[in-house]
Amino acid sequence: MQIEIDQQRLMQEIDTLATISDVEPPAVTRIVFSEQDLRARAWLKERFSEAGLSVREDAAGNVFARWQGARSELPAVATGSHIDAIPYAGKFDGVVGVLGGLEAIRALHRSGFRPARSIELIQFTSEEPTRFGVGCLGSRLLSGVLNPLADDSLRDRQGDTLKTVRMNAGFNGELSTVRLPQGFYSAFLELHIEQGPILDRENITIGVVTDIAAPASFTVTLEGEGGHAGSTFMPGRRDALCAASELILEIERLALSSGSRNTVATVGTCEAYPGAINSIPSRVKLGVDLRDTDGDRRDMVLEKIRHGAGEISQRRQIKVEMIMLNADPPASSSPRVLSAINNACSEAKVSSRQIVSRAYHDSLFMSRIAPMAMIFIPCRNGISHRPDEHASVSDIADGVEVLARSLAELSCDT
Amino acid sequence: MQIEIDQQRLMQEIDTLATISDVEPPAVTRIVFSEQDLRARAWLKERFSEAGLSVREDAAGNVFARWQGARSELPAVATGSHIDAIPYAGKFDGVVGVLGGLEAIRALHRSGFRPARSIELIQFTSEEPTRFGVGCLGSRLLSGVLNPLADDSLRDRQGDTLKTVRMNAGFNGELSTVRLPQGFYSAFLELHIEQGPILDRENITIGVVTDIAAPASFTVTLEGEGGHAGSTFMPGRRDALCAASELILEIERLALSSGSRNTVATVGTCEAYPGAINSIPSRVKLGVDLRDTDGDRRDMVLEKIRHGAGEISQRRQIKVEMIMLNADPPASSSPRVLSAINNACSEAKVSSRQIVSRAYHDSLFMSRIAPMAMIFIPCRNGISHRPDEHASVSDIADGVEVLARSLAELSCDT
Repeated sequence: MQIEIDQQRLMQEIDTLATISDVEPPAVTRIVFSEQDLRARAWLKERFSEAGLSVREDAAGNVFARWQGARSELPAVATGSHIDAIPYAGKFDGVVGVLGGLEAIRALHRSGFRPARSIELIQFTSEEPTRFGVGCLGSRLLSGVLNPLADDSLRDRQGDTLKTVRMNAGFNGELSTVRLPQGFYSAFLELHIEQGPILDRENITIGVVTDIAAPASFTVTLEGEGGHAGSTFMPGRRDALCAASELILEIERLALSSGSRNTVATVGTCEAYPGAINSIPSRVKLGVDLRDTDGDRRDMVLEKIRHGAGEISQRRQIKVEMIMLNADPPASSSPRVLSAINNACSEAKVSSRQIVSRAYHDSLFMSRIAPMAMIFIPCRNGISHRPDEHASVSDIADGVEVLARSLAELSCDT
Repeated sequence: MQIEIDQQRLMQEIDTLATISDVEPPAVTRIVFSEQDLRARAWLKERFSEAGLSVREDAAGNVFARWQGARSELPAVATGSHIDAIPYAGKFDGVVGVLGGLEAIRALHRSGFRPARSIELIQFTSEEPTRFGVGCLGSRLLSGVLNPLADDSLRDRQGDTLKTVRMNAGFNGELSTVRLPQGFYSAFLELHIEQGPILDRENITIGVVTDIAAPASFTVTLEGEGGHAGSTFMPGRRDALCAASELILEIERLALSSGSRNTVATVGTCEAYPGAINSIPSRVKLGVDLRDTDGDRRDMVLEKIRHGAGEISQRRQIKVEMIMLNADPPASSSPRVLSAINNACSEAKVSSRQIVSRAYHDSLFMSRIAPMAMIFIPCRNGISHRPDEHASVSDIADGVEVLARSLAELSCDT
């Protein structure tokens, strides 16, 4: 089968989407259900309709664009990713899987291919945890990993619940209607930039993802005692920021000494209260991200962090509260989907290697309800979640072709 | 001389002022030139006029309320303090010196006393550094310690210059007109809560302040490298928050080991960028407060902090920039003003002791242009800059009487 990817159009679409942002390009900030996110969603739906896809949305704001197959009574083959972006991120994370998935469908259509199983492109809600503290909101709900009660329990920094925010964004209906049954899809694939250095360093075009690392995240609130910075003597102070600093360094130390380079821990947020230069911090809230390809080792490190926090709490007379936001098991790809990707790589004549995803993705949760695998393409120096995140036109085009050929094979597998 | 302090009215005024705040009582947040600050200023000016005082304002927003003396051609005797409050502060810091100063003048008037030298009550602008990063803006400008060019260089978090903010608040005119000449006042006194534990612990009513500790404050910006929290291996990370944590602990260690309990250092603010739980912090900005009764020892500790920051910078490959906001020498009180306060304490029959002010105050800068001394009253457990900051009615009344009697003596000293 001859497949032509319209590189110019795809890159133009990626650049256009990048301009729908709270900050100036090349930086992208697009928080879920913000004004810019809603503008981006509207623009995307136009692209989907243009391509002749039928669009459906669920109560969580997940968007489904369907290319009807000849055997539409069979479970569809699905692909997709996200378009939300953390503050000052780049323009490729997630977007390559959504706009790339769209171009894959358009390319298959131009090539004369007609699918047996329908092919569905999914734009997931809030893969990034920025607003509600939990990543992959959309795919967690689709796969039943997240209880619909989260509608009222999850809140953003303004204190608004997920329910309020999604309804204001026009996504009404019960969150309980979002979950999809096992076997709803015959397969799920996601095209994504690696967000790591391996493919770029080894100059390999396609990473065939065999496993996704186990992610966990939690907040730590440290409560000490405030006071006047000038007149409170040093001995006997219960400075919450000094205690938080010890914990931050302990978390770093524990990740470095886990025995495996696959353990990574990051304190990404640190809020000190009351936040005046001449006032002793009485409370600090940390946001911590902990991952490992080995779920048990991750949980072991988590326990050591808990223990370290307890020790600091005792020694410094600081009240410490840890609240888990998520702790998910790792996922393995489906052999059948992997072989479709491998076949596609040979047909497209692109170099490939097996790879582990250390970042997590909606695929981690889609794997609960459908045979899953991911297609990685290189990003320069492995840099992601930054304005200088970069993927080359040819790598993107090759990734899209591999996705298209994989979708074709899987849609004919009846 | 018989002096009656109207306790009930004074306490009512203190409580009323506390309600003009961005947060619920007992907490008080009143940032300079915020809507609440402007409402408080308007309310105060009514009180001043009610008391028959003539009110003048300068371009910095300092307010001067004058009780004309028989010898109004002579330099006046001045007293005053501030009404701005850091986030979630208490209702006594500063306010006791302004409303107490007002009641002192009213009490003297009721007693039939008539001053020779005029008596002037000053409400200083932005004693707290919350908005512009520098404390005692008003008194620094009055005493010529702060260059009027600060008008364009000082900015708040929104990036607005002092000039823009004060003009929007209705304080026009050139900042260069604010400075007062040497000898403009024959004396300056400030009534204030101790903000420390000594008077409360020793059950002494009045602290006669002989010296004010030397304050310094600075920001430290640490610039590392961001990246994806999941896919960036630990070794080789340049996490700005981990580096900041080491510096925070080093600052604490250096203050604790200076050899004197009079050295205090506090990191009061910590802002991590980009501030996403799954993104490695690429930049952190710290706000640091460092004080000592001994200016040289403070500067020695400052140098050690600088050295420690350099070491962390090298080891962690983090760019570190320290920017001094202020580094002021300590101040000593005037013997003449001290003796007036001591006489007042005997006349009022209240217990007193000499004390050092570890917090700094507008008096630190007024001492540059006028003979200065301060009157401290106890605050419960030495707690300040917190909602549970507390001073007793009787201590406040005694402090006001001592202030009144001191003002009376100094105004007759011609």
